[in-house]
Amino acid sequence: MKPSQNLPVAKDKPLFTPGPLTTSLSVKQAMLHDAGSWHFEFNAIVKEIRERVLALAGLSADDGFEMIPLQGSGTFGVEAVLATCIPPDGKLLVLANGAYGERVVLMAQHMKLNHAVLRTPEDTLPDATTVDRTLNADPAITHVAIIHCETTTGILNPIEEIGQVVRAHRRLYIVDAMSSFGAIPISFSAAAIDYLISSANKCIEGVPGFSFVIARRAALLACEGYARSLSLDLLGQLKGLEKNGQFRYTPPTHSILAFRQALDELDGEGGVAARGARYRRNHETLVEGMKRLGFRVYLDPEKQSYIITSFYFPSDPKFTFMDFYRRLSDKGFIIYPGKISQCDLFRIGSIGRLFESDIRGLLAAIRETVDEMGLKLR
Amino acid sequence: MKPSQNLPVAKDKPLFTPGPLTTSLSVKQAMLHDAGSWHFEFNAIVKEIRERVLALAGLSADDGFEMIPLQGSGTFGVEAVLATCIPPDGKLLVLANGAYGERVVLMAQHMKLNHAVLRTPEDTLPDATTVDRTLNADPAITHVAIIHCETTTGILNPIEEIGQVVRAHRRLYIVDAMSSFGAIPISFSAAAIDYLISSANKCIEGVPGFSFVIARRAALLACEGYARSLSLDLLGQLKGLEKNGQFRYTPPTHSILAFRQALDELDGEGGVAARGARYRRNHETLVEGMKRLGFRVYLDPEKQSYIITSFYFPSDPKFTFMDFYRRLSDKGFIIYPGKISQCDLFRIGSIGRLFESDIRGLLAAIRETVDEMGLKLR
Repeated sequence: MKPSQNLPVAKDKPLFTPGPLTTSLSVKQAMLHDAGSWHFEFNAIVKEIRERVLALAGLSADDGFEMIPLQGSGTFGVEAVLATCIPPDGKLLVLANGAYGERVVLMAQHMKLNHAVLRTPEDTLPDATTVDRTLNADPAITHVAIIHCETTTGILNPIEEIGQVVRAHRRLYIVDAMSSFGAIPISFSAAAIDYLISSANKCIEGVPGFSFVIARRAALLACEGYARSLSLDLLGQLKGLEKNGQFRYTPPTHSILAFRQALDELDGEGGVAARGARYRRNHETLVEGMKRLGFRVYLDPEKQSYIITSFYFPSDPKFTFMDFYRRLSDKGFIIYPGKISQCDLFRIGSIGRLFESDIRGLLAAIRETVDEMGLKLR
Repeated sequence: MKPSQNLPVAKDKPLFTPGPLTTSLSVKQAMLHDAGSWHFEFNAIVKEIRERVLALAGLSADDGFEMIPLQGSGTFGVEAVLATCIPPDGKLLVLANGAYGERVVLMAQHMKLNHAVLRTPEDTLPDATTVDRTLNADPAITHVAIIHCETTTGILNPIEEIGQVVRAHRRLYIVDAMSSFGAIPISFSAAAIDYLISSANKCIEGVPGFSFVIARRAALLACEGYARSLSLDLLGQLKGLEKNGQFRYTPPTHSILAFRQALDELDGEGGVAARGARYRRNHETLVEGMKRLGFRVYLDPEKQSYIITSFYFPSDPKFTFMDFYRRLSDKGFIIYPGKISQCDLFRIGSIGRLFESDIRGLLAAIRETVDEMGLKLR
């Protein structure tokens, strides 16, 4: 087996994707250290990131919330909440308007959780009145799960409006805020959130390796004995952290060092509001430029997040997405490959260590690609 | 919330632990890149590491085996095998002589798998005759799980001898080779292994972020519909990789880049045999030096791996492990903190980017610490 080539000594192509995304060099350089995962110096870092993420959410342990990091991708974090927190006789209502909502349904199926699904089309917000009616009609439902920014399309779901309905019915509320936390302000009290899940490699601009859950402590402590998996036992993970400051099983030590650096850089940028403002400028620059080229945006602006934006495939038969994607990659720009929507859409992310100048560079490459392919866009 | 201090600009303390462990600077530097996890250039790297790990095991896809990487720590990989591969009416026999065997039992309990446990004391190998008798007596048992190097003590379990018994009974055989794969030669045919689990941050000297399973393809394909978890669905993971070359959910891209570099460096060192020889020299230097200082080794040499070594706590009442550990840390050496054995033992690992000179440095620090603490060792 021949040794592999190293990556070329060239600029990494910027990732216009919803994560893993482009991170700063300093975040990556924080990984140039090996930390002992049981060592007290490393434990102090774990404690620090747990507190700082709570602070990002406007919370502290005094508010009765805990930040619990878990090895694996964001999906592992979402499944850990379901595996740990739904009682054996519980029932989950999933609000789905895209692939990530459907993924929650898949989890429920794998774990044989009693569940129901309220689906809306991919361009349509879940309706609070329907949720209210459903909860009225089905007292067996104990938990409601929603995706905040459904990156299938980029739609931003109304977590506060739905959360108020869930609270009024005294059910528990699970918010998958994977691609929004850290850049879109979220009020735990206004949305009445019990469990929120996000991941290191999204708007905090760390590298992948772990997800984290912000859990209402009292709710989680009430879940003793429910866990359907050892690895995904969120309560076990919290107890381990509280027992000796350690992850129960080997943590991604380097990702955690990078995450601390990423938190420093988020603070340095001015926190969640400032980061959100940068992403919004990226998004606005992108949409304006794409419209000028003749591309059509999928979502109505009032439903559209500034995290990721979906565009219709051009109707010109000379367009194939793979050709378009590869030509952009050859020019040094990586957009989100493949489609997961039911419509013919392609997606471009605005998050990560990207600035307006990067978006302008991408727009120039898209213009050139449209010309090369001889596409007629209107 | 004040921004954190960066790690001091000082040499990282070497980790005499069974992973996460000390890695080379070049392995860490491979992480100074952001890769798009769906991008074809990254997919090619995933394909490469899958093939190269099989080659390390003396296998190729033609032998009917697959390497399947999975996000999370090694524990996630072990649980994924159980969650995916034990049929609803299956039964698992766990051979346990330490904490990692007991962890498999905990997994079975969480997932409510039908299971039985054959326990031997922590210094005692499982007995092939007893396994044979147990399998004769209980035809319901479909799978047998064993830990190769049980790092609770460092004992090396006889996976070939047991494997032959398991094969004779036509049961399936699961080997947790977390801390041995890559440095202790393992013959899949001689041991009749169906599933072997290891992790990036052990003897291959990568960084944590994912585990991997080497699975007999036919056995895994027969497990359709069993998966008790979406995230831990090993067959789903294989199908995802075969469909488009991608992880189903966000992979730890940086850990994977580091792993490829680590594979290069393992090849450069001379492969599994050469790496094992270095670890053996580390282990022998350690044991010789510790004995000279008056420490007593826990295991008989013929059961002892060269991965990690357990020493009895000194009987001198002035010894406390925490004091000993911290003094070594202050001198720049991190041994494995805490004990998981039922005996009063401390453990020192020989694996990772460590050489005889590192062991000699550790021994000098231990000698100095013994003097400082005024310990009488004989």
